[in-house]
Amino acid sequence: MDNNMVYRLGPGCEVDDIVEGQIYLGKVQGFATFGTFVLLNDRVKGLLHKSNIKSDKKERDQILVQVNQIRPNGNIDLREVDIPEGSYDTQLVTKKITLSRLSDLKNKVGRNVTIEADVVQIKQTSGPTIFTVCDDSGVEDAAAFTEAGVRSYPEVNLGDIVRIFGEATRRNNQMQIEVSDMHVLKGAEADSVRSRINKALEARAEPPEEVAPLIDSDVLKALWPEMRKLAKIIRRAVLTQQPIILRHHADADGICAAVSVETAVLQFIRDNGGDPDQDNFLFRRSPSKAPFYEIEDVTRDLDMMLKDNVRFGQKLPLILLMDNGSTEEDMPSYKMTEVYQLDVIVADHHHPDDTIDKYLLAHVNPYHVGGDFGVTAGMLGTEIARLINPAVEQKILHLPGVAGVADRSEAPELGSYLALIEGKYTRDECKDMALALDYEQYWLRFNDGREIVKDILNLNNAPERHNRLVTLLVTEANAAIEDQMSTMMPHVKDQKLSSGANLFLADVEMFAHRFTFPPPGKSSGEVHDILCKRYVNQPVVTLGLGPDFAVIRSRGVKMNIPQMVRSMRDEMPGAGISGGGHLVVGSIKFVEGMRSEVIAKMIEKISEFPVD
Amino acid sequence: MDNNMVYRLGPGCEVDDIVEGQIYLGKVQGFATFGTFVLLNDRVKGLLHKSNIKSDKKERDQILVQVNQIRPNGNIDLREVDIPEGSYDTQLVTKKITLSRLSDLKNKVGRNVTIEADVVQIKQTSGPTIFTVCDDSGVEDAAAFTEAGVRSYPEVNLGDIVRIFGEATRRNNQMQIEVSDMHVLKGAEADSVRSRINKALEARAEPPEEVAPLIDSDVLKALWPEMRKLAKIIRRAVLTQQPIILRHHADADGICAAVSVETAVLQFIRDNGGDPDQDNFLFRRSPSKAPFYEIEDVTRDLDMMLKDNVRFGQKLPLILLMDNGSTEEDMPSYKMTEVYQLDVIVADHHHPDDTIDKYLLAHVNPYHVGGDFGVTAGMLGTEIARLINPAVEQKILHLPGVAGVADRSEAPELGSYLALIEGKYTRDECKDMALALDYEQYWLRFNDGREIVKDILNLNNAPERHNRLVTLLVTEANAAIEDQMSTMMPHVKDQKLSSGANLFLADVEMFAHRFTFPPPGKSSGEVHDILCKRYVNQPVVTLGLGPDFAVIRSRGVKMNIPQMVRSMRDEMPGAGISGGGHLVVGSIKFVEGMRSEVIAKMIEKISEFPVD
Amino acid sequence: MDNNMVYRLGPGCEVDDIVEGQIYLGKVQGFATFGTFVLLNDRVKGLLHKSNIKSDKKERDQILVQVNQIRPNGNIDLREVDIPEGSYDTQLVTKKITLSRLSDLKNKVGRNVTIEADVVQIKQTSGPTIFTVCDDSGVEDAAAFTEAGVRSYPEVNLGDIVRIFGEATRRNNQMQIEVSDMHVLKGAEADSVRSRINKALEARAEPPEEVAPLIDSDVLKALWPEMRKLAKIIRRAVLTQQPIILRHHADADGICAAVSVETAVLQFIRDNGGDPDQDNFLFRRSPSKAPFYEIEDVTRDLDMMLKDNVRFGQKLPLILLMDNGSTEEDMPSYKMTEVYQLDVIVADHHHPDDTIDKYLLAHVNPYHVGGDFGVTAGMLGTEIARLINPAVEQKILHLPGVAGVADRSEAPELGSYLALIEGKYTRDECKDMALALDYEQYWLRFNDGREIVKDILNLNNAPERHNRLVTLLVTEANAAIEDQMSTMMPHVKDQKLSSGANLFLADVEMFAHRFTFPPPGKSSGEVHDILCKRYVNQPVVTLGLGPDFAVIRSRGVKMNIPQMVRSMRDEMPGAGISGGGHLVVGSIKFVEGMRSEVIAKMIEKISEFPVD
Repeated sequence: MDNNMVYRLGPGCEVDDIVEGQIYLGKVQGFATFGTFVLLNDRVKGLLHKSNIKSDKKERDQILVQVNQIRPNGNIDLREVDIPEGSYDTQLVTKKITLSRLSDLKNKVGRNVTIEADVVQIKQTSGPTIFTVCDDSGVEDAAAFTEAGVRSYPEVNLGDIVRIFGEATRRNNQMQIEVSDMHVLKGAEADSVRSRINKALEARAEPPEEVAPLIDSDVLKALWPEMRKLAKIIRRAVLTQQPIILRHHADADGICAAVSVETAVLQFIRDNGGDPDQDNFLFRRSPSKAPFYEIEDVTRDLDMMLKDNVRFGQKLPLILLMDNGSTEEDMPSYKMTEVYQLDVIVADHHHPDDTIDKYLLAHVNPYHVGGDFGVTAGMLGTEIARLINPAVEQKILHLPGVAGVADRSEAPELGSYLALIEGKYTRDECKDMALALDYEQYWLRFNDGREIVKDILNLNNAPERHNRLVTLLVTEANAAIEDQMSTMMPHVKDQKLSSGANLFLADVEMFAHRFTFPPPGKSSGEVHDILCKRYVNQPVVTLGLGPDFAVIRSRGVKMNIPQMVRSMRDEMPGAGISGGGHLVVGSIKFVEGMRSEVIAKMIEKISEFPVD
Repeated sequence: MDNNMVYRLGPGCEVDDIVEGQIYLGKVQGFATFGTFVLLNDRVKGLLHKSNIKSDKKERDQILVQVNQIRPNGNIDLREVDIPEGSYDTQLVTKKITLSRLSDLKNKVGRNVTIEADVVQIKQTSGPTIFTVCDDSGVEDAAAFTEAGVRSYPEVNLGDIVRIFGEATRRNNQMQIEVSDMHVLKGAEADSVRSRINKALEARAEPPEEVAPLIDSDVLKALWPEMRKLAKIIRRAVLTQQPIILRHHADADGICAAVSVETAVLQFIRDNGGDPDQDNFLFRRSPSKAPFYEIEDVTRDLDMMLKDNVRFGQKLPLILLMDNGSTEEDMPSYKMTEVYQLDVIVADHHHPDDTIDKYLLAHVNPYHVGGDFGVTAGMLGTEIARLINPAVEQKILHLPGVAGVADRSEAPELGSYLALIEGKYTRDECKDMALALDYEQYWLRFNDGREIVKDILNLNNAPERHNRLVTLLVTEANAAIEDQMSTMMPHVKDQKLSSGANLFLADVEMFAHRFTFPPPGKSSGEVHDILCKRYVNQPVVTLGLGPDFAVIRSRGVKMNIPQMVRSMRDEMPGAGISGGGHLVVGSIKFVEGMRSEVIAKMIEKISEFPVD
Repeated sequence: MDNNMVYRLGPGCEVDDIVEGQIYLGKVQGFATFGTFVLLNDRVKGLLHKSNIKSDKKERDQILVQVNQIRPNGNIDLREVDIPEGSYDTQLVTKKITLSRLSDLKNKVGRNVTIEADVVQIKQTSGPTIFTVCDDSGVEDAAAFTEAGVRSYPEVNLGDIVRIFGEATRRNNQMQIEVSDMHVLKGAEADSVRSRINKALEARAEPPEEVAPLIDSDVLKALWPEMRKLAKIIRRAVLTQQPIILRHHADADGICAAVSVETAVLQFIRDNGGDPDQDNFLFRRSPSKAPFYEIEDVTRDLDMMLKDNVRFGQKLPLILLMDNGSTEEDMPSYKMTEVYQLDVIVADHHHPDDTIDKYLLAHVNPYHVGGDFGVTAGMLGTEIARLINPAVEQKILHLPGVAGVADRSEAPELGSYLALIEGKYTRDECKDMALALDYEQYWLRFNDGREIVKDILNLNNAPERHNRLVTLLVTEANAAIEDQMSTMMPHVKDQKLSSGANLFLADVEMFAHRFTFPPPGKSSGEVHDILCKRYVNQPVVTLGLGPDFAVIRSRGVKMNIPQMVRSMRDEMPGAGISGGGHLVVGSIKFVEGMRSEVIAKMIEKISEFPVD
């Protein structure tokens, strides 16, 4: 005992941090016949042989011990020393920190590690508190236990940079840190860690360089940088535990787009240590009624996400709109997302309105690069899915085909996509899947129907069930369409317009089955298809008329529906006119009391469009 | 030490498996003043008196010990032996397995047991993993704990046959096995266990032989075998932890049918170790709007059950349809259940369509044996409930009466059922409960309203509250009906048909309160009742007319509504006609634009039916 | 050893309860080199020095020990005694109970306490059973653990008076008792505790004496006693863990009323040891479509509360109706609450109907004291909130202003309330918040939208977000109103009545946008406002006509709408007339088929009312 310095071995310290000959403040752990075990900290234990014991102690008593020897196998021999209290100073031995990275935990199971990371979620379970943390290499859970159901480290908040000491453990397929200590870093120290993490995240979020479009397409080539950007934002959300809400148009193209990304994201979450089956709040797919983000939808989403943020300390989500989000009609909802500074990204093939771009972090749309709606959302979604997670490619390779056939794409891209799956799926099989999706989604209303939809798209590794299901749904859908047509067709009124076009009026309210499949828009399309076949090579315009709306389908007429709606709106104040759509396909809304005036005016306008 | 064989005592082994004189590989458990305790496996502990210790060991060290003596009280005296490593062989002592049966656990609390069973559910809790297992005698939970929230034995899957070693414990009123080891049986060993379990399950699922119909009825006698079969399928589902979805028509008869079975099943679940209050996913009762299984309902059910199957490893459910399921209108939904190979059973009294039987495991319907709808679903349900669980008989004895009166049964069975409850409930009291059910279910929409419904039916052991509630609901219902009648009756139009029948047209849309009780069907019935009283002994036909439907009620006319609907459908293409029902009571749907033509045609057809 | 009495130290006993020289029955806890530790009960441990050991014992063995000495530091020196079994008597040492009060637990952390309390909730977690208990000083949780997920003390029921022994612990910011023993008190002992608790609760539930109305108002002064009574009932519910359901009219006034109380109650729950973020079943705010408690709402509430009562042993809730509940239209729902003996209280400013008072525990309404609807629900709510919890006053001080402006109050109280917030919020800002609430609630449908609503009312400490949100919502609302007006106004028909009044008919169904904001009632009001500005100083009556209803707005005419509706009801049997409202503002419902007759009659009646 040549000095009076007594060391306390700090949390996280290991045998390496002990120096022979020095005196430590220990704690009696237990007794054996040959001596007493003394803990130097939570982890490091030495043996005080009975020959070296000087005083009677009991379990948990403090004891001063000198380190005689550290044996090659790590065993520590101690001897008790007797220094009067007050006659020595104590000094904390802090760990010579060797930082571990979260991605490296799997190689350190059972060992003590130190981690510096960003706190991205704090969940109180009925057992430990789970701090989800993110460093430059990954995301893992750190479990801290004080008492069942009690929040550990209440001073640690969402977004803090923390240093964690603990043991790397494996829970099933996931790593976890059992926290023995954690504290919040401040100031420059925090800044430096945060900047390191951000830089690494930027790199990790980057989609793999080698992924290129599946097919040769100028449109896709031109869109590729924006698609990479969008995929990167999604990857970053997963890497930082930001929840994702995917809103999509509830038709076959929108479903294909969304399911592609769902497949990629769920696998990417799993690959990064998440469990989407448990943690399904990390990803939610919601079909939307309209092909835009309705105020009612954004309101419901906001209500839920703000409550989750308050209750579960969960981040505000990333909102991804697919087959949905590009038009002026989304504006009211974007204004709401702006107030709450939400991250919104869009992949759509509807004609985009430039005014919305200031609300978006990324916006993939073929029109931006000279393409059109023929490059459908399902095609875009599949490519984006590959950028998120290339491993899912083979699984979803047929979805662009299904989507393109569903939306009657006339773009050359469809042919290329169908060629990719030659020998696996025919064009007719794609068409069947598309019809099955539309029919089933009608009955699912606005539930995602995850497993049923996966069966329809043969994503469940159950090809026989897939076949049975698609066959059934197609049969039922066609029977329903046929029944609807046999009811509607006898009542269709026709009129030869001065332009030479054939105009047909089909009442989808008074002379059609309601509240069943096919709904009015689909019914109008089916009527139009029949008439187009009947009047081969002639210009055909079909109006599906409801009490306060009309669906417009045309062929062989140089229509400009958006312009027609705008001029009717100006000319008919008090008719409550709105609507639009594509040039030759669209819809119009009005007030019921002006129905006949609006129809008359519409016929007048349509007569003015020249036939092809 | 006459040989060099060292034994390791396997999991599940007990004192009985130890042989005096043999050497075992043990582990130091702890120290006392008089010696050292040595574990031979997780459970079996011996004492190494200090006089028999040869080496310095610490806790958890391995140690070779010879068994000196097993004392009568089970204490084991050991002495340490010193054989150089390498100079002995080790051999595992496997348990001479004495299989226990799950039903016998209650007699083995605190003891080690070995169980061979089928895994019927795997639930991960925030603590242990709960394997629900089923053998030839019952179902119990086996709790395996690795770490809080961590899935134990990940290699064990739903449907595996396993052998479990563990301790029988009691949790409140339930037995549980605390698993110390579990492994999956394969091949012939598994097959033999599975076949033993199946055979036993078949026997246990069998309804008690002694249960016979409550009343003397040829129809019930003839239906009895099919009712036993249906009850057995339900019992088997409970015994194997298969969830049950009970869909029923949301009227008084359907509710009585479903609540009878609910009462029996919930008690049967409890009797078999389940807790329906915690585990309410095991039984779900859902009132359906229509008296058939609508596509929308089967879609929602499927969506939920497939997700639960993926998330919770839960079996696909048994679907039970009551007062519901017998007709052609159920076909589209059955085709869906067929794709997913779901078990579906039906107890209904609507006129059955033979084409559906291939989709069903059992189908109870009085028409199959020459009965008719007068033997109502509530009567069938009560009998089935008794076959499931005879103990509930006294509690539900009045439900056939309520159901029969509700459906205006003219079958002799009703009188017999009412006779059973003479002195307890009058016919008028049954009628009141029926009306209260109809009225309350209207406001419950499609919630089951479990506790309120039990109060209406006096199943909650609170007769005073039952009385107050029924009195209130009947008063409110009658006031609403009276108000509706005073609104509708002045607008009823009448017409003398050439057949001599009196035809009345009541508009349930334009001249009735809407979106309130009584709804259109009930309103039409009430109008018809008033007219029947007014035109005593005369033939009366009442049409309740909506915009695109009509409800038909008749008395004293030889109607055949299904045939009328079919011929109108053929004669009026484009009117979108569908519908049907019973011979003299039914409904028809059409497109609104053809309303007056359809009504005119309907009157023409009705005129052709002769009066009685 | 001068006698043969052996003591057993009961649960809860501590060192103080031990007497030197006496003999106790202990249990061997463990061994040290210097001796053996012996437990005298779960908590109290003594040391048996090796010199005082007489027999070989192992862990958990029973042992007889005499207390040699209790040292000043609380250590207990024992020596083993050897008395033959059968030659001594044993006696339980019960704790000399020093009762602790729940409010005092925070000063006793880590110490053993004894509590006598009322069991107000029993929740089984996946870990311990949580007994929420209430004594004369507060409510706390007592956690009893038998085994994970197992119900401890199954003999203890909701409403029992219990005595609990346990350790006071701190869970984050909440105290908790870790139960070591608990038993149910019976008879006089229970009665005495219960009466003590009740008396104390009465006192604690009393709102602070010093709180007086914020403004000088005769109406509020006269209402004060009833407001105190209502606030007391709410406070008592919180103090006894009774859940509260707050139903309110879904307009700006109703929201302000409800959010005031919500703010006060949630803080009061927190102040009393609850956690409304975890335990949000303790308070639920539900906007109601109608300004009365609809049968559908009470049915849904009842269904849920009865199920929660059965499943979670939760008390039946207190129902609080705001801006809602005073009129005859609430009667059917009150009859239901009566059957279930529910506690219902009301704060409303609609014209009250005396017949309902027998169903209510308290009823605050300005009409009761000569006031009128100008003292709006939001004003009442804010004052009641202060009586519940004065600490929230500054936070909600602007809500009466928002509410009063929203309801166009002409009462002098509005000016006084606005004066209170001078310099903080202008009248126009209040108006904007009111419009933002109405607009946002329209899209929220009947969700409470808690966080969004708090942002609109600037209750979230985020003034900038509040500003952005209100600005956006007001802009959107005004654009929607303007669009609706430009559609409706061209179709408004006018008529000069014989009374000199100008009558305007606006069709809200045929010539208005439907299913969007503004809805029919609001649209009619906006039309009326435009016409009032156009016809300055002239009498104006506006009818907003739907297919089966009309909204009535008037200015400058001595209308009596309730009387008009009653006489029309009498004169037009079969028109299905109902409705009412205030004298000069109201609505009427009828059957669609009688629309033109009803409108004609209404015009005739309105003509008879003299102009001002």
